[in-house]
Amino acid sequence: MEVQPEFEHPNKAFGWAARDPSGLLSPFNFSRRETGEKDVAFKVLYCGICHSDLHSVKNEWGTSIYPMVPGHELAGVVTEVGSKVEKFKVLVGDMVGVGCMVDSCRTCQNCSDNLENYCPQLTLTYGAKFKDGTITYGGYSDSMVADEHFVVRIPEGIPLDAAAPLLCAGITVYNPLRYYGLDKPGLHVGMVGLGGLGHMAVKFAKAFGANVTVISTSPNKKEEAIQHLGADSFLGAMGTLDGIIDTVSAVHPLLPLFDLLKYHGKLVMVGLPEKPLELPIFPLVVGRKIVAGSIIGGLKETQEMIDFAAKYNVKPDIEVIPMDYVNTAMERLRKSDVKYRFVIDIGNTLKPSS
Amino acid sequence: MEVQPEFEHPNKAFGWAARDPSGLLSPFNFSRRETGEKDVAFKVLYCGICHSDLHSVKNEWGTSIYPMVPGHELAGVVTEVGSKVEKFKVLVGDMVGVGCMVDSCRTCQNCSDNLENYCPQLTLTYGAKFKDGTITYGGYSDSMVADEHFVVRIPEGIPLDAAAPLLCAGITVYNPLRYYGLDKPGLHVGMVGLGGLGHMAVKFAKAFGANVTVISTSPNKKEEAIQHLGADSFLGAMGTLDGIIDTVSAVHPLLPLFDLLKYHGKLVMVGLPEKPLELPIFPLVVGRKIVAGSIIGGLKETQEMIDFAAKYNVKPDIEVIPMDYVNTAMERLRKSDVKYRFVIDIGNTLKPSS
Repeated sequence: MEVQPEFEHPNKAFGWAARDPSGLLSPFNFSRRETGEKDVAFKVLYCGICHSDLHSVKNEWGTSIYPMVPGHELAGVVTEVGSKVEKFKVLVGDMVGVGCMVDSCRTCQNCSDNLENYCPQLTLTYGAKFKDGTITYGGYSDSMVADEHFVVRIPEGIPLDAAAPLLCAGITVYNPLRYYGLDKPGLHVGMVGLGGLGHMAVKFAKAFGANVTVISTSPNKKEEAIQHLGADSFLGAMGTLDGIIDTVSAVHPLLPLFDLLKYHGKLVMVGLPEKPLELPIFPLVVGRKIVAGSIIGGLKETQEMIDFAAKYNVKPDIEVIPMDYVNTAMERLRKSDVKYRFVIDIGNTLKPSS
Repeated sequence: MEVQPEFEHPNKAFGWAARDPSGLLSPFNFSRRETGEKDVAFKVLYCGICHSDLHSVKNEWGTSIYPMVPGHELAGVVTEVGSKVEKFKVLVGDMVGVGCMVDSCRTCQNCSDNLENYCPQLTLTYGAKFKDGTITYGGYSDSMVADEHFVVRIPEGIPLDAAAPLLCAGITVYNPLRYYGLDKPGLHVGMVGLGGLGHMAVKFAKAFGANVTVISTSPNKKEEAIQHLGADSFLGAMGTLDGIIDTVSAVHPLLPLFDLLKYHGKLVMVGLPEKPLELPIFPLVVGRKIVAGSIIGGLKETQEMIDFAAKYNVKPDIEVIPMDYVNTAMERLRKSDVKYRFVIDIGNTLKPSS
């Protein structure tokens, strides 16, 4: 962890920040840079709470910078547009969002391939540093300014509160379903872990026309998986799945998942267990199976994903909460007590401190 | 393990067999079926010694059937052709071979896709059972009969002794290089383990136009890798490889291999460590890397591989040995004391027992 005094930017901003690894969030005055020629500034109306916010405020990955304003699922309304913004037409009053990234090198192979998410010089939306050394602050705050490249247009037809979680949870599962070819109608796709990511994976896979199986060690999830989320089956049978999206961050055995895969099947990890998992090699070799990883997605595909979500009515199930409920929400999130994503109603409930 | 009395077939055959898990091989009289309408019979002239022969004669995988005549890298000359053989024109006197398989179900999806190697009812060339319950005997023997579907034509331009190891070691590395897209000129491909499989992987990758790195913990392999086998570099640098073929069967760490891969790189396991390996998830996820498996290849591709090998002069480095050296060869193989494949000169040295 690191503690950084705030650099004084011209534009006053206000949000909630964690000050130390207790992770407790409280009101925080800070500032945002002036809206540059290529920048889009917006008033934040909603911000989703991602499980990684919880890891970050508590410095569980060891790299946190305090004070930390978390939040990388921002949705809001444009307040100012830089004179040279040209990626798409952005007007004051438009609905936009920002996900996990606010900058990248723009020149490496990954950036050239619209895979900014794999740029080695990627700048995360909060708890990171811009090239000038100033700290990035996330979406648990009243305002945002970002280079147009990292701003996503939120299409009509998707409510702004539901749009927010798509910018991390949505793209995190949409991308591997696409990249690993699990987006073809009629394929059998399994999901492990029915949280923020897992429930979005079910919904996107259904929208792609897959037959979806929810894999869980909790029998009480069966009803919610099938009746509520629209999954086709629960637990699954040996050798029946073309692919599995594994969203679990706890250490867990992979062998039962390999067993569920067909020959040539793909197990895609999007969770981040801190300790290594046991990898049995026989099933991998004799079944020509693969274990793959994937993290979020590039900006071009994030736009494609949210446009797809609007068109096919793919929306996260959210619990909208007021700003001052955030610490309680974090505790509930740790216990997986949310169906399935908390979204903070920033616009109506973030009140400037006295 | 299992001990099975021999079923008396019409055609007398002679070879060397292991009688028990000591793995000691000695002369053995047995029989082969009559040449059926769809069968090709041939006199075995050469048979490679695969590392799995060593595991099998010693029952190290627990599934061995004794007496066991090992050998699944057979090359020889056709002696009889069934009346309905039609896959390709086979004439008495032609050079042919048989690899790891002698039968499969012919109807499953994998069989339909020319991936008999992934057929759940696959019949291995030795130590397995045909559908009629009779035992399969391998190539450490004077003669072979097999359904034409499982017989490969050995093209002119490749010596018969060098052709034999292509039928297992060759296809085992050729297939994953192709299937995982590591066969494009200019790609950077690494090989772990410089044995029978590894040295063929170097040669095929070079033939595909790759820049090849040999990865080994033995510094004394550098000279042989580069000067003898034609690899471009040794050990490798972080983030430089598009793919790695890992032929090591011992438990070994995967993290250093992930580190050598570029973003989106592929680690393909073709060895079979008995215990699970440690799979760190972070490098997999943040680099969108994959760990994959692969085992031998289908018959169509095996023919393609051996034709390619003849055309581009890809040949294993072999040490040709007489039949009665086989037990010594097995001991040397256990110590990796061979460059790089033993091939038994069956035609000239297998003498009928008194």
